[in-house]
Amino acid sequence: MSSNIDFFFEPESVAIVGASHKPGKIGFELVRSILECGFSGEIFPVNPKGGEILGLKVYKSISDTSSKIDVAVIVTPSKTVPNIVKECGLHGIKGCIIISAGFSEIGNRKLEKLLLENAKRYDVRIIGPNSAGIINTSANFHACLEFRVPKGPVSLISQSGAVGGVMFAMARAGVIGFNKFVSCGNSCDVNEMDVLKYLLRDEETKSIAIYVETLHSGRSFLESIRKFKGLKPIIALKGGKFSAGLRAAASHTGSLASPYAVYSAVFKQCGIFEVPSIGSLFSSAKISAYHSSSNGERVVVVTNSGGPGVVATDMCESLGLSVPEPSERLKEKLSAFLPSICSLRNPIDLTAMAGYDWYFNTLKELSSSMEYDYILSICVPPSFMDPMDAAKAIVDLYDVYSEIPVIPCFLYGSMVMKSIKYLEKHNIPCAYSIMDAVYSLKALSYFGRLRGERS
Amino acid sequence: MSSNIDFFFEPESVAIVGASHKPGKIGFELVRSILECGFSGEIFPVNPKGGEILGLKVYKSISDTSSKIDVAVIVTPSKTVPNIVKECGLHGIKGCIIISAGFSEIGNRKLEKLLLENAKRYDVRIIGPNSAGIINTSANFHACLEFRVPKGPVSLISQSGAVGGVMFAMARAGVIGFNKFVSCGNSCDVNEMDVLKYLLRDEETKSIAIYVETLHSGRSFLESIRKFKGLKPIIALKGGKFSAGLRAAASHTGSLASPYAVYSAVFKQCGIFEVPSIGSLFSSAKISAYHSSSNGERVVVVTNSGGPGVVATDMCESLGLSVPEPSERLKEKLSAFLPSICSLRNPIDLTAMAGYDWYFNTLKELSSSMEYDYILSICVPPSFMDPMDAAKAIVDLYDVYSEIPVIPCFLYGSMVMKSIKYLEKHNIPCAYSIMDAVYSLKALSYFGRLRGERS
Repeated sequence: MSSNIDFFFEPESVAIVGASHKPGKIGFELVRSILECGFSGEIFPVNPKGGEILGLKVYKSISDTSSKIDVAVIVTPSKTVPNIVKECGLHGIKGCIIISAGFSEIGNRKLEKLLLENAKRYDVRIIGPNSAGIINTSANFHACLEFRVPKGPVSLISQSGAVGGVMFAMARAGVIGFNKFVSCGNSCDVNEMDVLKYLLRDEETKSIAIYVETLHSGRSFLESIRKFKGLKPIIALKGGKFSAGLRAAASHTGSLASPYAVYSAVFKQCGIFEVPSIGSLFSSAKISAYHSSSNGERVVVVTNSGGPGVVATDMCESLGLSVPEPSERLKEKLSAFLPSICSLRNPIDLTAMAGYDWYFNTLKELSSSMEYDYILSICVPPSFMDPMDAAKAIVDLYDVYSEIPVIPCFLYGSMVMKSIKYLEKHNIPCAYSIMDAVYSLKALSYFGRLRGERS
Repeated sequence: MSSNIDFFFEPESVAIVGASHKPGKIGFELVRSILECGFSGEIFPVNPKGGEILGLKVYKSISDTSSKIDVAVIVTPSKTVPNIVKECGLHGIKGCIIISAGFSEIGNRKLEKLLLENAKRYDVRIIGPNSAGIINTSANFHACLEFRVPKGPVSLISQSGAVGGVMFAMARAGVIGFNKFVSCGNSCDVNEMDVLKYLLRDEETKSIAIYVETLHSGRSFLESIRKFKGLKPIIALKGGKFSAGLRAAASHTGSLASPYAVYSAVFKQCGIFEVPSIGSLFSSAKISAYHSSSNGERVVVVTNSGGPGVVATDMCESLGLSVPEPSERLKEKLSAFLPSICSLRNPIDLTAMAGYDWYFNTLKELSSSMEYDYILSICVPPSFMDPMDAAKAIVDLYDVYSEIPVIPCFLYGSMVMKSIKYLEKHNIPCAYSIMDAVYSLKALSYFGRLRGERS
């Protein structure tokens, strides 16, 4: 079998085996997704009934197509899959993405073994089975059951389609999203390590998020990946940490799970930053993608709201980031334009009265002070303030200075949606919660240190 | 001075001293908030310029009003405040809510002392200074700088107006909100303990959320509050836990802060459940308000998405909740209507194919099984599923059975907004993240145990 898996992401033609005529069915929605997301290659729906789906001719079998096809997406009942893989191989198809479930994840290891034997015999690479599909937004290729996703520099490897679905919905709350997504499912052939190595080479991928429940071989993962330590930001969320979670992970992907401590050790040795939640996985990956040359651990919190500033400071300290007071000289500079109601001790509390000027001038002074490595800029608009003032101050700052990253954390929901979209349109990634923001800062600091060790 | 502070929440008449004619100014927005939120009592804007604001006659001074006034909200410059408090006392006003900042929080302890002396001499109770105001949604009384807030059973005491602002915005993402809100500011007179004792008596308040940076006397707080242990759910977020956070908290409310461990010990002895974030503070308080008679620590996770189910299970276990497998008998019952692709080991993974029937029947069996104390119901809709199916299954379940709480956690954002609103309209409070959901479950378990000790 080819060790190259690049073709999965940029196929010139794709077959959907198990395409359905019924809206709402997976076999229909998959054709619709590929079509509507603007895939420019040829699409071959396959269903023994023939006919048409969304204006596309439906072929009765793979061999009926008589065309060269790169990739097949399979959504037929599990027992039919091994034979379809064989057919695909005989037709010259290089890889199958198997959405169909009902293999090792429900104990049906025999069927999975048969599938893999056919794949090897007929030289077909397999993603899945029990995969939610793959996405490459650069090629407008969306062979996936999850909702559409905004384009961006983050790539995601996930042993759960729905973890991807949640992250894609988070991306839609802003503007910045994903480049590639792979749901490995049961990983009977192509596994997380193979995809990770591909993404480490992929120029469009600036950071990599991983949701992993089980690695098939921790040792070979470690040996393959640790040489890339510090090359690109990699952030992981481990699913199945404790007894019930391990049991659940085993049900979910059909693999045996190792103790959590083994994973943490492997992540650490490979330079993979671990986070505790889906939200922090998304924001850390997104923010690391944009600020991949930053360094240090000194954070200054600029806020228009005391309480959220204090909570952010607590979280920074609990993760080992430092939140030092400004020098007397810097305080003097700030007090030249900030009134005495503002606190200058870090967090810099601009109070609810803060508008564009206070934000802009404060950010400018802090950015050029050399006293900090990151600015966490919090805004909770009171009823009389438009948060767009603070958003514009941050965007305008980047036009003048861009010495250190400014991480905006505007709270909450519809109150700040316009500001978040404005910031992200200007390539300034936002965090949606204080915890997500602080994990992202910690990630920047972590990768900064790794790059230092590498160089 | 009166030890009763009830009058603050149900005034028959209110003066706004420092009312402004200019939209966008605090003195204007405050009048607008009180007016637009439907306050039924009399409103007396006070400003030496006179005239009209939003159709209301403006009085040149308090004494000009010649009417009985219960409460004055003060937004004038700090140095004018002590004298205004005196005027209020002479006019028979029982309490002042002082929004004005510029007192001990910026080191101006002398001015705060003077203010307090006048309050004592002229028999006026004080909330603030440096308060963001108070809200009582039952009386449509919104004397607050924060945005409007949906009504609900949660009351909030906060040393930060903006923490309230974030929580109110979170409430607006659903339907269920707040009953009362008090921002104590510098707490020169009425402090968190006084408000807490009031809310413990208040029948409309079903649960209490507290954001606290500093308690003025941990010992008297402990002595006053611990006798109410287990009476109502109380949830706290402590701001200012470590060195920089403590420094920030000191700047924010002008008080000296004790080590974090002291607070944790006081909370524990008073039966106050501690949470780490604003999101978990809101969801724990909201969910505790509705499920205040629940008990136990056995959670069953019902999900249509494997990964989020595993993440939830991990978080449950990390907080000490148990996530046990169903009995063989219960598994048999479930497998009577669930196909073999579903995992029945807890999390119960209904897979992406789950619609109304699978959710409803599964929830019904689990709810009546006596094997669990809580159901965490996760839904991450894939592109071909309407999450309203799962939402309706939960609402319909409550019509038939309501043995144990079902906590919905639908993810994420606009994809599930309609479902969340539908559930909350039917008095089923939702969590917006897995972490928030799990902290809420832990809160229910914590308060269940306390009630057991109490009875």
